[in-house]
Amino acid sequence: MDEKEISQAVIGRLPRYFRYLGELKDEGVERISSQELSVLMKVTASQIRQDLNNFGGFGQQGYGYNVEHLYNEIGRILGLDRQHNFIIVGAGNLGRALGNYINFEKRGFIFSGIFDQNPSIVGMEVRGVRVMAMEEIERFIRENNIGIAVLTVPKSAAPVVAERLVQAGIRAIWNFAHVDLNVPAQIQVENVHLSDSLMKLSYNINRYMKEQEML
Amino acid sequence: MDEKEISQAVIGRLPRYFRYLGELKDEGVERISSQELSVLMKVTASQIRQDLNNFGGFGQQGYGYNVEHLYNEIGRILGLDRQHNFIIVGAGNLGRALGNYINFEKRGFIFSGIFDQNPSIVGMEVRGVRVMAMEEIERFIRENNIGIAVLTVPKSAAPVVAERLVQAGIRAIWNFAHVDLNVPAQIQVENVHLSDSLMKLSYNINRYMKEQEML
Repeated sequence: MDEKEISQAVIGRLPRYFRYLGELKDEGVERISSQELSVLMKVTASQIRQDLNNFGGFGQQGYGYNVEHLYNEIGRILGLDRQHNFIIVGAGNLGRALGNYINFEKRGFIFSGIFDQNPSIVGMEVRGVRVMAMEEIERFIRENNIGIAVLTVPKSAAPVVAERLVQAGIRAIWNFAHVDLNVPAQIQVENVHLSDSLMKLSYNINRYMKEQEML
Repeated sequence: MDEKEISQAVIGRLPRYFRYLGELKDEGVERISSQELSVLMKVTASQIRQDLNNFGGFGQQGYGYNVEHLYNEIGRILGLDRQHNFIIVGAGNLGRALGNYINFEKRGFIFSGIFDQNPSIVGMEVRGVRVMAMEEIERFIRENNIGIAVLTVPKSAAPVVAERLVQAGIRAIWNFAHVDLNVPAQIQVENVHLSDSLMKLSYNINRYMKEQEML
């Protein structure tokens, strides 16, 4: 089946399959049925079969899924068998925290550079990588085969910085700035809007409290 | 209309409305039609009308929406008119970065305490708040009316810590640990799985590169 037809909803669920299969693999589990996986992941077995069928269906009737094979296949589909060099733009608290997170390297994401416009931060080190000035960013992207930029600058600076990154040839932006970016369609953008997530939590607390008050 | 019937999909979109309306308000815009909002937010006008109708429909035929009124109403629906005290559990890089993020206070989320099990981190300060030992957490939650715990401990520690937080009376967990939590249904959980988000980005880069190779 043509991978291009797969919906973003299914793609959005693949990392979770990958995570559970990785844990099963580490525990030495060799095969698992969609029913067992269903109980573990708290989604229906039919959802699991439907999702995995998108990729040619790795399951066998009466046998279930081969855990390691499925894990590797999903990893390949997610592009985790390739190496991606990334830079962090904005060396504030969040940028530095992401730079220090070593688990990204395990998935093939290589922390290659970090940039900030504040001269008092330039020259600091984040996990052995020196913070560079914004003036160096275009050259660095071109010379170091940088595909991904992690955007952790303030909201007000984000549109201009994103424009520069695109001009310099970046292919994807992992956007933590609290603004929607206007970039060409071929640039992949994944947003992490932390405040939106916290507001959703706030709504659910509020709703629950109102329900309790009404009882 | 009963707020309980509103789907999580609609709820998930409310913070984005709130963000755009806040910007319009700051720019002095007094009213806006669903068509204008549609162009700005890149969703259909009918989607906007449908979403906002869930809350009684604040728009008027031929007038549009009153920006400030709609902003305040959505804020109230999201529970942002209440104050929520939160603690951060896990004072590693990410925990400290979140503690330093002052925008949460603007939305009524008050950074009240931060905890870590590592004795060499206990006593450090994050934005004027002293890192406390894990032993103090139950007492602190009870004495300081803490509703929300931000969970930034390693995956392996998360289930046990979550259990302790629930026992101590926490109402909501903002979970950054890379694991799905098993907590009672009345505990609100909002997951931020950063690795899942990065894998989704990886998939989209990979797919785009394959498409280019096929041309």
